[in-house]
Amino acid sequence: MIKPKLTFRKKQLSLQEFSQGLLKGNISVLGQAITMVESTKMSHQKLAQQIIRKIMPYTGESVRIGITGVPGVGKSTFIETFGTYLTRLGKKVAVLAIDPSSENGGGSILGDKTRMEKLSTDIHAFIRPSPTAGSLGGVAKKTRESIHLCEAAGFDVIFIETVGVGQSETSVHSMVDFFLLLMLAGAGDELQGIKRGIMEMADAVTITKADGENLNQCKIAVNNYKRALHLFPAKKNGWIPKTSLCSAINNTGVNEIWDIINSFINHCKTNNTFEKNRTKQAKFWFHESIQEQLGNSFYLNNRVKKHLAKFEKEVENGLKNPFEAANQLIDIFQKL
Amino acid sequence: MIKPKLTFRKKQLSLQEFSQGLLKGNISVLGQAITMVESTKMSHQKLAQQIIRKIMPYTGESVRIGITGVPGVGKSTFIETFGTYLTRLGKKVAVLAIDPSSENGGGSILGDKTRMEKLSTDIHAFIRPSPTAGSLGGVAKKTRESIHLCEAAGFDVIFIETVGVGQSETSVHSMVDFFLLLMLAGAGDELQGIKRGIMEMADAVTITKADGENLNQCKIAVNNYKRALHLFPAKKNGWIPKTSLCSAINNTGVNEIWDIINSFINHCKTNNTFEKNRTKQAKFWFHESIQEQLGNSFYLNNRVKKHLAKFEKEVENGLKNPFEAANQLIDIFQKL
Repeated sequence: MIKPKLTFRKKQLSLQEFSQGLLKGNISVLGQAITMVESTKMSHQKLAQQIIRKIMPYTGESVRIGITGVPGVGKSTFIETFGTYLTRLGKKVAVLAIDPSSENGGGSILGDKTRMEKLSTDIHAFIRPSPTAGSLGGVAKKTRESIHLCEAAGFDVIFIETVGVGQSETSVHSMVDFFLLLMLAGAGDELQGIKRGIMEMADAVTITKADGENLNQCKIAVNNYKRALHLFPAKKNGWIPKTSLCSAINNTGVNEIWDIINSFINHCKTNNTFEKNRTKQAKFWFHESIQEQLGNSFYLNNRVKKHLAKFEKEVENGLKNPFEAANQLIDIFQKL
Repeated sequence: MIKPKLTFRKKQLSLQEFSQGLLKGNISVLGQAITMVESTKMSHQKLAQQIIRKIMPYTGESVRIGITGVPGVGKSTFIETFGTYLTRLGKKVAVLAIDPSSENGGGSILGDKTRMEKLSTDIHAFIRPSPTAGSLGGVAKKTRESIHLCEAAGFDVIFIETVGVGQSETSVHSMVDFFLLLMLAGAGDELQGIKRGIMEMADAVTITKADGENLNQCKIAVNNYKRALHLFPAKKNGWIPKTSLCSAINNTGVNEIWDIINSFINHCKTNNTFEKNRTKQAKFWFHESIQEQLGNSFYLNNRVKKHLAKFEKEVENGLKNPFEAANQLIDIFQKL
């Protein structure tokens, strides 16, 4: 006789339970709240909005740090070392990941929590992959909402990790306070593999694996980067991007990075650019979100779906000019 | 007795007259057609769309060259020299300008045709400023349409000129085949004043005013740029950006730039990236245009206008999270 299969379903928390749990720093509740944020189900999204509205007054107190670098640079090892260093200082550390690569079947960069063995068992740390497929804008939006949830749950330092080879860095840059680029010392062409423009966003460039026989090469690389960063004009906030070395093996360099970040925050809070930047980011996400939703309602429209491919083909083949084609498709969309 | 004021009004051409005039290369008709494209009047815009649809099969044969550089670099002198060089080679040369600076009361970069005295009287050249105020996307869109009109009128080389300090370069980059950055030899920090990211888009960097006592410094600068360009990863089309020197006084260097452009075209046509890039650009403008029109219909909506400022304030003050605010404003917009 086959036993009836039993399914256990976690009972969904109420708005009250969510907000209270978050404000108490309950990590299980935090995880479930992010699930609500990431869900595509309408009822979940509504609840997520309510949760965020409720916890909004308790957010904003963390340091938001974007970390990027090509695969192989040692991002997870770095975050593990840096995160552990920070929890020992008494900080609560959250790690979020934006991972558009999962769309291309490339596998999630944070899918495997065991990448950060030590940090993932640290009770003062919270690690969350975002393997959600879908539009990058959508994924980034969810990450930005998750930042607020982590802050409500009392996290002081929030890392947002990206692969560093895609489009995601601009999105991340517009939701963090500090942007850190991890690099390997290369044999010559040090910027190889890093997308154009990412280097310019960096507030600091850190060369990883600066140990053993590699150390000398890393010292040369750090000087090259210093020179390259100098070629870019000064940032609006007056910050001059820093360079540093670190080694996970020797456990060196993370204190230096933390110093850099603190002096950055100090610099920006003194000249009022810290809050200004956050205000600017909020406004940016407001208008981005409007454009995204307008785009969604357009591209998800059945009449648009029916005609889009044909129009694109005609534009590609030069049979229609892009603006005319856009006009016509908008007309089709607006017809009731 | 005061004489009644006589106003002479040019009779507006018909669609037929426009398309025939354009295809005959009639410069006066070309000017009027661009005026239709740039007009905000609905009837003009409709006519412009019809004109473009009609001439579309006769477009695409030119080389579209973006030229940028900070004020003082000698853009107009350069274009004058380069343009005259090309008309002597039997080419027809059009110069279009995107000039968002006029919005800020900075004056139009091409408002004064006398900037290019020789070229503006050359019967094989056509110079057109775009002093249109308004959204950059809108101005850029008009410029892209004007390119098509110039091509229908038989222009072989089209320059799109920008100031090089604003947001316009990305737009220009997405409508040209070749992107040329003009630079001055500086005393040290050679990239000063050039917006982050512009350098990365350049297919060639040319140092102007390479004559007299300045020549040696220019030679040093060219080497610095060569090194700086080398720091960026290779472009997708496999092209390695070139550097060169030129002098309007000595009339040197423009032939070299023309050689660079030709070898670029040759390179891209051989590996099929030339047409691929244009197809990509057309698709880009199709979707850009859709987003722009969706945005317009939103931001010009009376209910949205009434509430927008309040929502923005609330987002800035952290009273509303950006996504919630966007949702609510979209709801207001979609209410009939």
